[in-house]
Amino acid sequence: MGEQLEALQRRILEQGRVLSGGVLRVDAFLNQRVDMRLMREVGSAFAERFEGAGAGVVLTVESSGIAPAGMTALAMGLPLVVCKKQASRITRDERLSTMVHSFTKDAEYELSVSREFIAEGERVLFIDDFLAMGEAALGVARLVGQAGAVLAGIGIVIEKSFQPGRKKLEALGVPISSLARIARMDPDECDNRKAITFM
Amino acid sequence: MGEQLEALQRRILEQGRVLSGGVLRVDAFLNQRVDMRLMREVGSAFAERFEGAGAGVVLTVESSGIAPAGMTALAMGLPLVVCKKQASRITRDERLSTMVHSFTKDAEYELSVSREFIAEGERVLFIDDFLAMGEAALGVARLVGQAGAVLAGIGIVIEKSFQPGRKKLEALGVPISSLARIARMDPDECDNRKAITFM
Repeated sequence: MGEQLEALQRRILEQGRVLSGGVLRVDAFLNQRVDMRLMREVGSAFAERFEGAGAGVVLTVESSGIAPAGMTALAMGLPLVVCKKQASRITRDERLSTMVHSFTKDAEYELSVSREFIAEGERVLFIDDFLAMGEAALGVARLVGQAGAVLAGIGIVIEKSFQPGRKKLEALGVPISSLARIARMDPDECDNRKAITFM
Repeated sequence: MGEQLEALQRRILEQGRVLSGGVLRVDAFLNQRVDMRLMREVGSAFAERFEGAGAGVVLTVESSGIAPAGMTALAMGLPLVVCKKQASRITRDERLSTMVHSFTKDAEYELSVSREFIAEGERVLFIDDFLAMGEAALGVARLVGQAGAVLAGIGIVIEKSFQPGRKKLEALGVPISSLARIARMDPDECDNRKAITFM
């Protein structure tokens, strides 16, 4: 669904760092230092791809998803809802929650959101920075299901297509669009143009 | 420095919830459900107020600061840098870090950022969603100092002026601008127009 985003691929090649264990660090423009102009392009691209999805809300997971999902919400004129990775002590409202396994951190965490922010029957567009093992996205799909809402689409900034997440999400039967899809990474190769292969 | 932002004050009155213990919940438009159009107005307001600050980077703390700080960075054409509340296992680079006490969570956390993203001598604009006790902002000021950079300004979306944060930050001698300044909150009053008094 949709071409890959050239400006994003270029930036991955310029500033990404391939580490061992299938880790791609993009701290220089997406995770720690965020290029908001690039995020605006990302938001426009998702808005175009999911124009017909009938979404009423854009959902993401804190914290690296917020910038790309926020720019998508702005481009689509929709509210952004942020799922928390742990329940806050000061939010005592009724929460939807599910446990998610993080392979990056090798730990379980609780993903949660206030029930009031996902209406029953609402069509939800999920946007996240990375797709690797797919566990966060599956957790979001469970939360959306708990709310009686409908997952209308999944937009991913960077997909590591050599990991199992994509396949797991395809089983949900929901449109998936990734702006960059990485087929292969070689941590022993210093030149990113050789180390990273897009699909 | 600057007038308070009317659209923001109105929204606080419409959707804010005053709880006991000086807690103001604005989950409906700022923390969990985020109104990105309002965040765009917030970003424009900060961009105008800090136009002459000579900032080279906008800094914030995950995760509620990201939306307003991101829109500020976009409006100013600057990169956004996000301080983490705990060091990630996959970032092994040299990090600046400091311990911060959270009164909300009654716990200490580690605030950190990669040294590479704050250059020596750089002028840093710090944007955050709330100012209450001021501990996060003071932590950021320490990180900026560790980097040999200069804190050029502090922009706060909602300031609880009845708590000590403002006074602590004024001691830094840096321009501070808050878009809404709350002088008083009364948790026993159900009508927000009576419960919340702006300065």
